[in-house]
Amino acid sequence: MARLSRVTPSFAPGTVWLVGAGPGDPGLLTIHALNALATADVIVYDALVGPDILSFARAGAVLEFAGKRGGKPSAVQRDICERLIQLAREGHRVLRLKGGDPFIFGRGGEEALALAEAGVSFRIIPGVSSGLASLAIHGVPATFRKSNHAVILATGHPAPGEEIDWASLARTGAPIVLYMAVSSISSIVGSLMEGGLAGDTPALAVHEATRSRESVVEATLESLPGLAEKGIIRSPAIIAIGAIAAFRSTIANHLLEFGSEATQ
Amino acid sequence: MARLSRVTPSFAPGTVWLVGAGPGDPGLLTIHALNALATADVIVYDALVGPDILSFARAGAVLEFAGKRGGKPSAVQRDICERLIQLAREGHRVLRLKGGDPFIFGRGGEEALALAEAGVSFRIIPGVSSGLASLAIHGVPATFRKSNHAVILATGHPAPGEEIDWASLARTGAPIVLYMAVSSISSIVGSLMEGGLAGDTPALAVHEATRSRESVVEATLESLPGLAEKGIIRSPAIIAIGAIAAFRSTIANHLLEFGSEATQ
Repeated sequence: MARLSRVTPSFAPGTVWLVGAGPGDPGLLTIHALNALATADVIVYDALVGPDILSFARAGAVLEFAGKRGGKPSAVQRDICERLIQLAREGHRVLRLKGGDPFIFGRGGEEALALAEAGVSFRIIPGVSSGLASLAIHGVPATFRKSNHAVILATGHPAPGEEIDWASLARTGAPIVLYMAVSSISSIVGSLMEGGLAGDTPALAVHEATRSRESVVEATLESLPGLAEKGIIRSPAIIAIGAIAAFRSTIANHLLEFGSEATQ
Repeated sequence: MARLSRVTPSFAPGTVWLVGAGPGDPGLLTIHALNALATADVIVYDALVGPDILSFARAGAVLEFAGKRGGKPSAVQRDICERLIQLAREGHRVLRLKGGDPFIFGRGGEEALALAEAGVSFRIIPGVSSGLASLAIHGVPATFRKSNHAVILATGHPAPGEEIDWASLARTGAPIVLYMAVSSISSIVGSLMEGGLAGDTPALAVHEATRSRESVVEATLESLPGLAEKGIIRSPAIIAIGAIAAFRSTIANHLLEFGSEATQ
């Protein structure tokens, strides 16, 4: 990879790189992410970063799992920030590797803020967003000139005690791409319909895009809760709601989808 | 790059790959994009794809410029679609390489539809979106848990004869990331303020992120039109409006920004 090295910023000891790993397929890693994997001393990685991607770590790198599964999210987030600071202060090249993009529902902002407050230098390496990519590879464009000039990305999993004004989002008429919304889909759908979205608005759910357990479910707004309840739409999933979600069926016959081929 | 080949889907003759090249820095290309560059027979590229990126094309690949500069956009778009179809029918491996992500304000949907209607098989390779990445590398997260649970991406350049309901977008309270909006920023700002956004809402504009002519301008919603008129904010630029835009100043002292180092 000699030729690639000309685009590589140097990974200085004592710094942290907050890096997006994309939706899962290692082919959707960026060159900067790949370089970070090949250089880092310690890699602190999320539940959404799989072994295929970690296999690109340099021999001798320490791999630390820092996913959130159950437990108390806010306490765990604070622990992760403290661990990054500690590792940087010990002089390591610290790669904080997150699924998707670190700055789109990835808590990268919180980690950047904690590092800045601690006086630790860091770099942000954007990644391919899981939400947009999960849809794109299945033929769903976030924007299509004839149907929408804006798109809304929203999380179904807001901070504790906070609520999202779904009705005002619905009233924009823009399609909505939901992250981490399967467990709360029933109340979200109710609010979106109160905000004026029709029950037959097209919807599409993609579970674990580009991974071996990937599944794609075509739906409508009103059919989403039932499909989630039956386990046909499983978490984690990305859900698109709006005319764009119906686009897949118009092009699917000629779309070469990611599949087992991509991870051979 | 032997080790990377295991993640490479095969690029079959007579097919088109619609691929995102990211915001400009070759380090933000994905491995799939890099592989496509190294394999394609013909590369049909946008104005936003620079020579740094095209230098990764295989020796002997034909490079065709298909940018839109002035002229009639819809006619040119039809010409591009027809050219892709023609090249595929001639049996070439056709790489349609677009700045950012092909499915976010990139007209990738139109091209995919034209290919499907012509019976040409194609693949979508998502890229790092220019809008989100331009902000992220300068310390602006698209989402920050304490300020927003949704983010709106919108184009300032809708299809001819169509209008965007800026007031309804403003009323959501979600931050707005504007693509291609410099020339129309004055009317957009007026509509957003009519929709209830305060004039002192933080804003940030990033021109040509990760490129040599990059510039970053901190502003407020109401100062944007004057800054654009004076040429301080130049097109093309990505503009963020909302609390997230002020985030940069809180972390900038410790943020390692992309710069000349990244393209040495």
